[in-house]
Amino acid sequence: MRITKTVGQYMFGAGTIGALGDVLQEPKKNGATGVVYFVDHFFNGSDLLDRLPVGADDHVIFVDTTDEPTTDGVDAYVDQVKQQMDGNVAAVVGVGGGATLDTSKAVSNLLNNPGKAADYQGWDLLPNPGVFKVGIPTLSGTGAEGSRTSVMMNQEKNLKLGMNSDYTVFDRLVLDPDLTASVPRDQYFYTGMDTYIHCIESLAGSYKHAMADAYSHQALSLCRDVFLSDDMQSQENREKLMIASYMGGSAIGNSFVGVVHPFSAGLSMVFHTHHCVGNCIVMNAMDDFYATEVKEFRQMMERQDIPLPENVCGNLTNAQWQDLYDSTVVHEKPLINALGDDFKSILTPDRVREIFARM
Amino acid sequence: MRITKTVGQYMFGAGTIGALGDVLQEPKKNGATGVVYFVDHFFNGSDLLDRLPVGADDHVIFVDTTDEPTTDGVDAYVDQVKQQMDGNVAAVVGVGGGATLDTSKAVSNLLNNPGKAADYQGWDLLPNPGVFKVGIPTLSGTGAEGSRTSVMMNQEKNLKLGMNSDYTVFDRLVLDPDLTASVPRDQYFYTGMDTYIHCIESLAGSYKHAMADAYSHQALSLCRDVFLSDDMQSQENREKLMIASYMGGSAIGNSFVGVVHPFSAGLSMVFHTHHCVGNCIVMNAMDDFYATEVKEFRQMMERQDIPLPENVCGNLTNAQWQDLYDSTVVHEKPLINALGDDFKSILTPDRVREIFARM
Repeated sequence: MRITKTVGQYMFGAGTIGALGDVLQEPKKNGATGVVYFVDHFFNGSDLLDRLPVGADDHVIFVDTTDEPTTDGVDAYVDQVKQQMDGNVAAVVGVGGGATLDTSKAVSNLLNNPGKAADYQGWDLLPNPGVFKVGIPTLSGTGAEGSRTSVMMNQEKNLKLGMNSDYTVFDRLVLDPDLTASVPRDQYFYTGMDTYIHCIESLAGSYKHAMADAYSHQALSLCRDVFLSDDMQSQENREKLMIASYMGGSAIGNSFVGVVHPFSAGLSMVFHTHHCVGNCIVMNAMDDFYATEVKEFRQMMERQDIPLPENVCGNLTNAQWQDLYDSTVVHEKPLINALGDDFKSILTPDRVREIFARM
Repeated sequence: MRITKTVGQYMFGAGTIGALGDVLQEPKKNGATGVVYFVDHFFNGSDLLDRLPVGADDHVIFVDTTDEPTTDGVDAYVDQVKQQMDGNVAAVVGVGGGATLDTSKAVSNLLNNPGKAADYQGWDLLPNPGVFKVGIPTLSGTGAEGSRTSVMMNQEKNLKLGMNSDYTVFDRLVLDPDLTASVPRDQYFYTGMDTYIHCIESLAGSYKHAMADAYSHQALSLCRDVFLSDDMQSQENREKLMIASYMGGSAIGNSFVGVVHPFSAGLSMVFHTHHCVGNCIVMNAMDDFYATEVKEFRQMMERQDIPLPENVCGNLTNAQWQDLYDSTVVHEKPLINALGDDFKSILTPDRVREIFARM
């Protein structure tokens, strides 16, 4: 039995970002008047800022997305918001890709819950709902806009894990495909493939079920339309990929990933590889587990003429190989989903090293 | 720009009806303690009732679904609830097919809004949210569980029209595919085809857009799995059809139907034909508008060995032909969606009569 919390309302279509001011009227009815915007630092100085209805009580915080979000980083943002806004926060708005959206979701939750981000890494640990949260994706693929998690790296515990909770689901989404028109091609591809990858992982897992499957199948169908076409970033394809990402997030909120994401998390922990390019690097070495899908993935890469970093694990120390192994096999839920309870007999240290060495 | 309100939470899976008691704890936190259950009269005396957590403050009302819901009927239910429960209504629970779900949604809204059901037939006319509402479909296909409408016949105005509002969306859904195991085969088929039909109408319309299309495509894919298989009512197929119905409801909440539904509404108004069998009767006469889909529809009927009422418009008076015409072409939005602003030049009285005569 699964209870699935969905995004309460979404707006979809070119130009919908213009309606954000209206969306924010609702949470302001409860007394607080300030809005904190978490905006990907990529947009610092861009004209996207002029399109946000930033008022006198509001604050804009640029999220440095050079590295993946960390629990310490999220805690620092929470402190900053508390200091600058003194409790007057009606809404948290995230404008960016998965890293920025996840940051905004985690901060929203921590403004209404005691303690630190690391206290809530896991499943259903938050006692209180967060501040009203609005997601505005400027990249499509991670599914962060539709999911019930906020993934953060916890350096102390050498762990990449999400704050999984119904309270992590956005209250409102503004899905404006105009915002993904200027994304660099490589990043557009890598991020979009996150949807493709978590959907094929979900469909191949033992925890699969009909609802997650339906969302996964449709998200994959849209990914195929986009990445096997001549112009993956046409308006029609940007619309499709934005929907695929949202549906992929809905699918994965209902099931689990598989072998790719744990290996990718290993790359993130040891080399600070970004999630989406990390997934693609791993996917390209997954012939043993997802043979058909790896072929299709390579076909898409070729069709879009996208390069992939190579030899990413050259010349590692034994300690680094051990770190890679540890930060991969720690992801028990997805690995059990993909390979069964006995996954460590399949993913031995030697096998894991051999797979990483292919990347 | 579209704002789409979604069902807040859903539970999916065999046996989830057992969790209804937990679901109802939430609305009871606000003070009221009573729950009113609207249950399809088909279940009067059945053991489904034993599975509902009916308590001392609760009332069960059996909905006579012999005919489609009417505005007068809904008003009478509202009066009954007000009289029996004296304001102590924490939640309205609908247990049944589209007629019962629509009835429960409309009653929930009218308990918190002044006036009569007919006052709110149209778009976005309700000033206040309704009482917390939970939908438990026992039939799959109408999409009533996922939609923002509640369709009622208004005898006075000779009109079949919905109470379209964000407030008409269920707060919670319990999607339990066990509940559709005992549906008679014909009814299972006719109702399931409602999803197929409104999705093909939506995809063929001019108001189509990428989000509605994605839901429609996935719903259609599931319908094909179900109705082109050997056992449309296997557990796997009941799960698939339940999801198709929910997704079809989500699609149509974002777009419009086409030529089939207006003709079917005509049959409902004049002959009290039920919505779903009416759709199938009309679909079988739609070669001029949906040639490919009509072929597939017939293939599904044949595969499942489902009969269709024939010669439904034999021996009509001129007044009845006029009624049929009037109650068909009154549906301007879907007909404009399908045929353009000038739809009456295509659907002349003679053409409409000729199409009805084929049924």
